[in-house]
Amino acid sequence: MRIAIGLYDCFTSLDAMGPFQVLSSLPGAEVTFVAAKAGPVTDESGFLTVTARASFDELPDPDVLLVPGGTITGTLVPDHPIVGWIRRAHPTTTWTTSVCSGALLLGGAGVLKGVDATTHWGVFDELARLGANPVHERVVRRGKIMTAAGVSAGIDMALTLAAEIAGVEFARTLQLMIEYDPQPPFDAGSPEKAGPELVNRALTAMVQTMQQLAARRESFAEGVDGRTAAGRPG
Amino acid sequence: MRIAIGLYDCFTSLDAMGPFQVLSSLPGAEVTFVAAKAGPVTDESGFLTVTARASFDELPDPDVLLVPGGTITGTLVPDHPIVGWIRRAHPTTTWTTSVCSGALLLGGAGVLKGVDATTHWGVFDELARLGANPVHERVVRRGKIMTAAGVSAGIDMALTLAAEIAGVEFARTLQLMIEYDPQPPFDAGSPEKAGPELVNRALTAMVQTMQQLAARRESFAEGVDGRTAAGRPG
Repeated sequence: MRIAIGLYDCFTSLDAMGPFQVLSSLPGAEVTFVAAKAGPVTDESGFLTVTARASFDELPDPDVLLVPGGTITGTLVPDHPIVGWIRRAHPTTTWTTSVCSGALLLGGAGVLKGVDATTHWGVFDELARLGANPVHERVVRRGKIMTAAGVSAGIDMALTLAAEIAGVEFARTLQLMIEYDPQPPFDAGSPEKAGPELVNRALTAMVQTMQQLAARRESFAEGVDGRTAAGRPG
Repeated sequence: MRIAIGLYDCFTSLDAMGPFQVLSSLPGAEVTFVAAKAGPVTDESGFLTVTARASFDELPDPDVLLVPGGTITGTLVPDHPIVGWIRRAHPTTTWTTSVCSGALLLGGAGVLKGVDATTHWGVFDELARLGANPVHERVVRRGKIMTAAGVSAGIDMALTLAAEIAGVEFARTLQLMIEYDPQPPFDAGSPEKAGPELVNRALTAMVQTMQQLAARRESFAEGVDGRTAAGRPG
């Protein structure tokens, strides 16, 4: 089973890596990180660089397509190469999936027209503007399309998907293998639980983070070419 | 605050990436993936390659040291370069932390002698042999040493650590930003909840997975050099 995780500059790391941990352990799984071109792709923090092993053109027809979100997702719709890849690949996938604001990229590809879907709580309105029916659930499955809420929800989605692909007992075995018995130290994981004050703080922090990340990426970008060429930090 | 995540060939991806997602958003965080030498490091699945931006020698004194686990961790103790790095860095860290079988590497470095610590349920006995006092809790903090149970427990640990570093309100804000409101589709995340039959199945699957991963890594290793040189898949 060919599983493709579509990357792009400024993706959110855990959006991709939560599901990857689960899906890479499925029997017969061949997971490929893909991007506009093969080579290094850096996440939104600027600290993580992952190697895409194939370009979108080189893996046009995965069985499972997974799209992570990222802080600049809104600006990617609908012109980014990943959107074209989703549009072309979706008709022949077994599963088309997204995590967090990755749903906006599915929406940008026209895949969610009139379809129930979920995304990060902060971008529900954008999802509606792309023609989807935003649903406040952590994992939403409609036919072969499965979407997950923000960031960490990709783990719950991947276990749900694992059960569809390999059976419930295998999915439960995977859950035990990754000891997924979550015990968050706080009870602030959803807007309802966090309350309006924390929601406002999170929204402010998200905007500030995006600005800081943008600045950090720029300073990194100047240094990274030299680093990459030398194979070590400058 | 300089946060170093120590990588090595065959690390478990989510062990590193769960905490990374949280810690990289801390105010003033500078996160560096480090390894024996700077450059590409491949996870236990063989599918994920991450760029280490510095060598252990280049970052000998991080403020926060984090060690992920991996399927070959047992064979790394005590001779792997990461163990020497832990031993040298620990005296001056603000926090020394591990996820999953990463605790065995802390143990190998002599950091856990007589210290309460946790690790993946499958390797509790190994932790005891390294002189630690294995504790069945998801996150264990003793002084400046914080250890997490298997794989996904790194997220709970990182939020706990975030609260220590940046305060509870900031940690709660991070939790909301990553929408960490876990809803596992099954209730099989611990040996107690899973029951003996599933535990046996998971242990068998873990051994099989390790064997498959070893075989896959070998076949990848033959092809990867060519890929890396060309910057794209062969």
